[in-house]
Amino acid sequence: VSQKLLSSAVHYITPAVSTKSVIPILSGIKLHVDNNGLILTAANTGMMMQYEIENDSENLIVHNSGSIVIHSRYFVDIVRNMPYGLIKIEINDGLNVCIQSGMARYKLNGINPEEYPNLVKHEHCGKLTFSNHHLKHIIKQVTFTISTSETRPVLTGVSCEISNDQLRFVATDSIRLSSQTTNKFTTEHFDKSMTVIIPGKQLLDFSRLLTNEQGITDIAIGGNTITFKTNNLTLQSSLIEGTYPSIDRLKPETFTSELIVETTKFLRALERVTLLSGESNNVKLILMTVNSIVLSSKTEAIGDVVEEVIIEELDGKQLSVTFNGRYMVDIIRAIDSKKVKLRFTDKLKPIVVQPIDNPNSFFLITQIRTPDI
Amino acid sequence: VSQKLLSSAVHYITPAVSTKSVIPILSGIKLHVDNNGLILTAANTGMMMQYEIENDSENLIVHNSGSIVIHSRYFVDIVRNMPYGLIKIEINDGLNVCIQSGMARYKLNGINPEEYPNLVKHEHCGKLTFSNHHLKHIIKQVTFTISTSETRPVLTGVSCEISNDQLRFVATDSIRLSSQTTNKFTTEHFDKSMTVIIPGKQLLDFSRLLTNEQGITDIAIGGNTITFKTNNLTLQSSLIEGTYPSIDRLKPETFTSELIVETTKFLRALERVTLLSGESNNVKLILMTVNSIVLSSKTEAIGDVVEEVIIEELDGKQLSVTFNGRYMVDIIRAIDSKKVKLRFTDKLKPIVVQPIDNPNSFFLITQIRTPDI
Repeated sequence: VSQKLLSSAVHYITPAVSTKSVIPILSGIKLHVDNNGLILTAANTGMMMQYEIENDSENLIVHNSGSIVIHSRYFVDIVRNMPYGLIKIEINDGLNVCIQSGMARYKLNGINPEEYPNLVKHEHCGKLTFSNHHLKHIIKQVTFTISTSETRPVLTGVSCEISNDQLRFVATDSIRLSSQTTNKFTTEHFDKSMTVIIPGKQLLDFSRLLTNEQGITDIAIGGNTITFKTNNLTLQSSLIEGTYPSIDRLKPETFTSELIVETTKFLRALERVTLLSGESNNVKLILMTVNSIVLSSKTEAIGDVVEEVIIEELDGKQLSVTFNGRYMVDIIRAIDSKKVKLRFTDKLKPIVVQPIDNPNSFFLITQIRTPDI
Repeated sequence: VSQKLLSSAVHYITPAVSTKSVIPILSGIKLHVDNNGLILTAANTGMMMQYEIENDSENLIVHNSGSIVIHSRYFVDIVRNMPYGLIKIEINDGLNVCIQSGMARYKLNGINPEEYPNLVKHEHCGKLTFSNHHLKHIIKQVTFTISTSETRPVLTGVSCEISNDQLRFVATDSIRLSSQTTNKFTTEHFDKSMTVIIPGKQLLDFSRLLTNEQGITDIAIGGNTITFKTNNLTLQSSLIEGTYPSIDRLKPETFTSELIVETTKFLRALERVTLLSGESNNVKLILMTVNSIVLSSKTEAIGDVVEEVIIEELDGKQLSVTFNGRYMVDIIRAIDSKKVKLRFTDKLKPIVVQPIDNPNSFFLITQIRTPDI
């Protein structure tokens, strides 16, 4: 097999390699070769990844069928360091592997491949197809609001509501929330609505590997498993069990004030003001005049900062709110619309943030209640 | 002062910023401004760095002289996040600083600058001048063999022997050694020979900042201090006290075998063989024929590797030696000559490694004594 191709295949499945698994066989990468090609599999307790190299008689020449599991740490380094050109891999009796290229020859002890887990086959189940570009964009807009705390496992995932021709991704860590709805996909065999919770980490791992933005990704959901497939790469993950909290009642329907600012200008000012927001990250936003808002923060013993941001459009009355500056920075960074709309209700309700050119996307961030001075 | 210039100045002196100093004032950066310009100083217990921005009435406009110390963590982030253009810095009574640009205004509590340490002035002392390109090259070739253990502090430094028109840098961690001699520099006021020990970390910090390879660096040595100066940047460090071990008796004068290999080919093979050298990093080199050497290593329970490397020239008899593969990789990586010469004496003597086109450079690596089988 060509060193270049094998090295890139190994790179793709690396996120699934277990580095400290309690199941010894998962510390290995499985190689399976037959007349169709060479399939590399890596697995940890959360997900499996597979990359297939086709038998084209040029980059891959198959002499005999066979399987073996090789210690991933060594295999990855060996493949990466081999000279360009073809690498000869020979599986011998007694689970020995010989890897050879140029004048280098490795003899490794392999592991019995029979105990290695297999991908779950999805049959007669629903399938969704996305352009990689759009899928990557949506994943970027929801995954940053995933909870990192294991106290409520469902919140470490992204809720995915599928109905007829619409799909809605929601993630929240209880302080901020992202909701992204899309109809830019095609379906097959989806005859009913369903909601599943996709583990956030796996979704992020997969989106990082979507380097070919022109390509497409098939997503199959069946049983308790989700499978992503793009070109030669497959990622399979368990879904998170449980019920995702209902979020529709969280978004305020009425507003006391609504304003529009330029995204980049607002972001830069927020970043600067957040620098002095200390451990609480509290940033105050005050609307006093019709032309601008004032952002401010302070750190005890260090100092304070104020910055004014020009408003593009305004509808409503004066206000003063406090929020987590870093969390707001994350939201504004994820928005690629030129202008952003902020909507406020009262002290108890979250602030609504929306890109002005996409009504299917919104973010919520809770206010921090501070003593009125 | 221009944001771009100030931001780059702050970047240069960052290596000297104390992050967890027990001396509170060292957690700050000192600003001193007068009609000549603005001088930024950062210091930790090991070194001081200074960057001078000249008063050119365009990138720096001076209204009044003054000094202040500002918490470095906040100052660095504030400067980096300010909009392009001019930043106005005002030092007020009571050690308050106001930093302003565009619509952002920071008010910070400063620290009294009087207690901040000052650079040692070198008067009537020796000075050496190097091209940055050459200095960087030499630093790269010695610093990787510095000891990281504090048990023998002198070995954490680079020994620098200065005589008439020659300078020799030596570093060793007792297992490997680098010796680099040069005459490509000019001197002033050096009327006697001397040997000083420069802290390795500071030498590395300075070389990383030598981005302008066309420039020159002045090195002044006096008392117990060494000062590097290039363009607007100054780094001052204490020297390490003590006596560096004499290393001349370590280099074998006679050889039983000498061979020449292509640097890149030898390096790649070494890297591959070292992958299976386990925790000991033991790599064996065997010379049996006149055409090639064989490198090998093994890791218990994992496997073994052998690779042959063609010899370009050979003088001497058959041999079998074992050395630390990773350390040898470091040495061969530091060599930029196309071919490299390896010289062997007997089991007790170190191996000598030399770039074939530079007789002023050599490396030693001790053999690992293994039971003869």
